Amino acid sequence: MPKNIYLDYAATTPVDERVVAAMEPYWTKEFGNPSSLYKLGQRAKHAIDNSRQTVADFFNCQPEEILFTAGGTASINLALKGLLGSYKEPMHIIISAIEHHAVLHTAEKLKKLGHEISVLPIDKDGLVNIKDLEAAIQDNTVLVSIMTANNEIGVVQDIQKLGNLIEKINKSRKNKIYFHTDACQAAGALDLNIQKLHVDLMTINGSKIYGPKGVGVLYIKKSTPLTALIDGGGQEKNLYSGTENVPSIVGLATALKLAYQDKEKNNKQLTKLRDWLIAEILNKIPKTRLNGHATKRLPNNVNISILDVEGEAMLLYLDEVGIQASTGSACTSTTLDPSHVIRALGCPYEVAHGSMRFSLGKDTTKQDLEYLMSQLPKIVAKLRKASPVNINMADIDKSVKLAARKIIKL
Amino acid sequence: MPKNIYLDYAATTPVDERVVAAMEPYWTKEFGNPSSLYKLGQRAKHAIDNSRQTVADFFNCQPEEILFTAGGTASINLALKGLLGSYKEPMHIIISAIEHHAVLHTAEKLKKLGHEISVLPIDKDGLVNIKDLEAAIQDNTVLVSIMTANNEIGVVQDIQKLGNLIEKINKSRKNKIYFHTDACQAAGALDLNIQKLHVDLMTINGSKIYGPKGVGVLYIKKSTPLTALIDGGGQEKNLYSGTENVPSIVGLATALKLAYQDKEKNNKQLTKLRDWLIAEILNKIPKTRLNGHATKRLPNNVNISILDVEGEAMLLYLDEVGIQASTGSACTSTTLDPSHVIRALGCPYEVAHGSMRFSLGKDTTKQDLEYLMSQLPKIVAKLRKASPVNINMADIDKSVKLAARKIIKL
Repeated sequence: MPKNIYLDYAATTPVDERVVAAMEPYWTKEFGNPSSLYKLGQRAKHAIDNSRQTVADFFNCQPEEILFTAGGTASINLALKGLLGSYKEPMHIIISAIEHHAVLHTAEKLKKLGHEISVLPIDKDGLVNIKDLEAAIQDNTVLVSIMTANNEIGVVQDIQKLGNLIEKINKSRKNKIYFHTDACQAAGALDLNIQKLHVDLMTINGSKIYGPKGVGVLYIKKSTPLTALIDGGGQEKNLYSGTENVPSIVGLATALKLAYQDKEKNNKQLTKLRDWLIAEILNKIPKTRLNGHATKRLPNNVNISILDVEGEAMLLYLDEVGIQASTGSACTSTTLDPSHVIRALGCPYEVAHGSMRFSLGKDTTKQDLEYLMSQLPKIVAKLRKASPVNINMADIDKSVKLAARKIIKL
Repeated sequence: MPKNIYLDYAATTPVDERVVAAMEPYWTKEFGNPSSLYKLGQRAKHAIDNSRQTVADFFNCQPEEILFTAGGTASINLALKGLLGSYKEPMHIIISAIEHHAVLHTAEKLKKLGHEISVLPIDKDGLVNIKDLEAAIQDNTVLVSIMTANNEIGVVQDIQKLGNLIEKINKSRKNKIYFHTDACQAAGALDLNIQKLHVDLMTINGSKIYGPKGVGVLYIKKSTPLTALIDGGGQEKNLYSGTENVPSIVGLATALKLAYQDKEKNNKQLTKLRDWLIAEILNKIPKTRLNGHATKRLPNNVNISILDVEGEAMLLYLDEVGIQASTGSACTSTTLDPSHVIRALGCPYEVAHGSMRFSLGKDTTKQDLEYLMSQLPKIVAKLRKASPVNINMADIDKSVKLAARKIIKL
C-alpha cells in the first residue's frame, strides 16, 4: 500500500470526525435561518449563541465580544480595516515583518487609503523586540498587529509582554492604541486567555484546528471602535452581515473544544516528535539550518533551510513518495517570490528558496517521521547533485548576523 | 404526529441530500489547501476549477469570470464597494427601492464615503420603470444595481430590457455604466444566461438553492474594474482572499446543477400551487391583498397583506400549528421597522406590518397548502377579534394609487 503521510497541518487540517458529526444535523434538518422568528430559526440562533459561549469560555471573555466571520483572513480584514475606518484622519499602524499576507496586504491597502504603516524587524530567531515596538509608536498610532505564532517558522511571540507595554503606554496618551493578534496558528496549541494577553482584537479560524474551512472568529474587546466590513442584514453586530453559516460555526466551536480538551497531551507528544525531527535533519543532512527559535516555537513546527536545493523541487519529490510538506516560501503557481518570513530572519534569497516546513498533527507518529527521514536525505542528495548552487554556510551566518533589523515605513 | 410544514424557502433552504453527499469527501479525506503544490492540494484546486466551470456553464460565461465568495451579501459588497473603489472621484450609483439590505446598506455606506445614490421607485406591482432608470442616469453614473427577483414579494424585473438600455446608452458616453443584478432569489427558478441579460456583475448564493450557507458567487464580466474586498493571500483573483471553502464551493455547484436539472418540472408545479394558494387566501379571508405582480413573480412566492393583524403574531401562531412562514417585514428581534418593499409598493405602514410571505419549495404539496388553509383563516379571525385596528380597503387602494413614485437621492 502506498504511503500517505501528511506533514502540512499548518496549511490546513482535516476536519475531525467528531466535528463532521456535530455539523451534520444542520444540513438537512436544523437548517433554519437564525433571523427567522419561528422555532426552527430560533434553534439555529441558539446553536450560534451556544457556539459563541463556547469560544468565549476558551478566551475568558464575554460572548458579546465574539464575532463569527468567514475565516481568518476575513477576521483580520475586519479588525484592521474596521478599526481604521472608524477614524476620520489618517492614522498609524504598527505590524511585524513576518505577519501573514492577510495582515501585510491589508496594511498595504490601508496605506493606499492614506494611513501610515511601520514594520518591526525580527531578531535572528524570529522574535519581535519590545524596544522596537516602543520606538515605533507615534502620536497617531492606533493599532498594533503582531501575530501570536508564525505560520511558517512557528515562532511564538510574547504577546502578554507586548500587550502589557501597550496597556501601560495607553495610560498616558490621548489616542488609545489597540492591539490585534492573529492567533490562527496558535489556536489549539497555546493558551489564548484574553485577560492575560491584554489584546483588544484577536483572530482565529476553523481550518487550522481540525474544524471546517470558511469560518473564523474575531474577538473584539468591548468599546473597541469598528466599522462594518460587510454591510447588509445586520448580522454579527452589524459588522459582518450575511446569513450566518450555522453548521460551520457549530463546527468551529466543537473543534476548539476538542483541541483544548487534548491540548496538554498533544503538545507534549508533538514537542517530542518536533525536537526529534529537527535533530535528525540537522544531524543527518549537511548544510541545514533551523529557522526560528529552537524552543519558543509551536510544538508542531519544523522549518529548516536545506542549502543548495529548491524547496519546490523537494516538495514535489516528497509528494512522489507519499509525503506532503510545504516550502517555507509562500510561492504559489502565480508567484516565485521567496518567503518574506525567512528573508526577515536575515537569510539571503537562496536560503529562503530552500526552506522546508514540516508541520505535524495530532495523528503524526514517530514511524511517520522515520519514513520521512528514510526519504529526505536521498532526495536532497539527488537534487544537490544536479544543483549549480553551492552556498557557504558561513556566508549565511554572516548575513543573519549583519542584517539591518530596522523599523521601516511602508 | 405533529405537522411540520416549511413554507419559508425564500429565507433559506435545507441542503439537498445529494449536495451533502457531494461535500462529504472534502471534510476528512480531500481536505487539502488548494494553494498547496502536492497532489492532495491540487485535487482540491481541481474541485474548485470544476465547480467554477459548472457555474460558468449555467451562466453561459467563461470560468475566469466566476468568483467564489462567502455568500450573497459578500458578493454584493464586493460588486458595489469593489467597483466604486476603483474610481478616485465620487461617482453615482442607481439602485431600486426594493433591493435587499445588502445592496441598500452598502449603498448607504458608499454615500458616507462621498458617492451619490439614486433610488428608483417601483410601480404598484413592484416593477421598475425603464424610463425612471433612463432619467436617473447622470454623467458620473458608473453602477446600476437592480435585483432580478425580489426576496419578499417575488416580483421579477425585466433585467434583459434594462441591460439592453444600459448597453445602448454606454455606446455614446465616456464613463461606462456597469450593471449588477442580485439574482440570489432567482437562481434555480429563472434562466440566468449572461449573454441574454447583458449584466456586468451578478450575485447568487448557495443557501437559496438547496446548497450550503456561507458560499456565494459573483459573476464579473471581463475588464470590469474591481478592487479587493478582502485582502490577503491572493485567492479568487486577488479580490476575495482567504483559503477557499472547498466543500461549500463544491456544494454550491452541485446545488446549481440539481436546480437547473429539474427547473421546468419544479416551476410548473410550483406555479400551480402558488396560484392556488393566492386564490384561496384572497377568496377565503376577507380584507387581503396580493403584494407584487400576479404573474411576473417567482413561481414559489406568495406575499399577501392581511389587514388588521400583525404579521409577527400570525407567524408565531402558525409556528404553533407546525407551519413556518415569514412576515413581509424584515423585522428581527432588534428592529420593528416595517418592510421597505411593501412600503415602496405604496402601502401604508399598517399594511406592511400585516403582510405574510409563504415561499414554497420543491417538496411542497397541495396537502401542505390545504393544511395551511385549514389553519390560517382561524388564526386571522382570532387575531382580528383582539385587534384595535380596522383599516378600510379603499384607503389602501387610494394610498397605492396616489403614491409619489419619484426617484429620490439618498
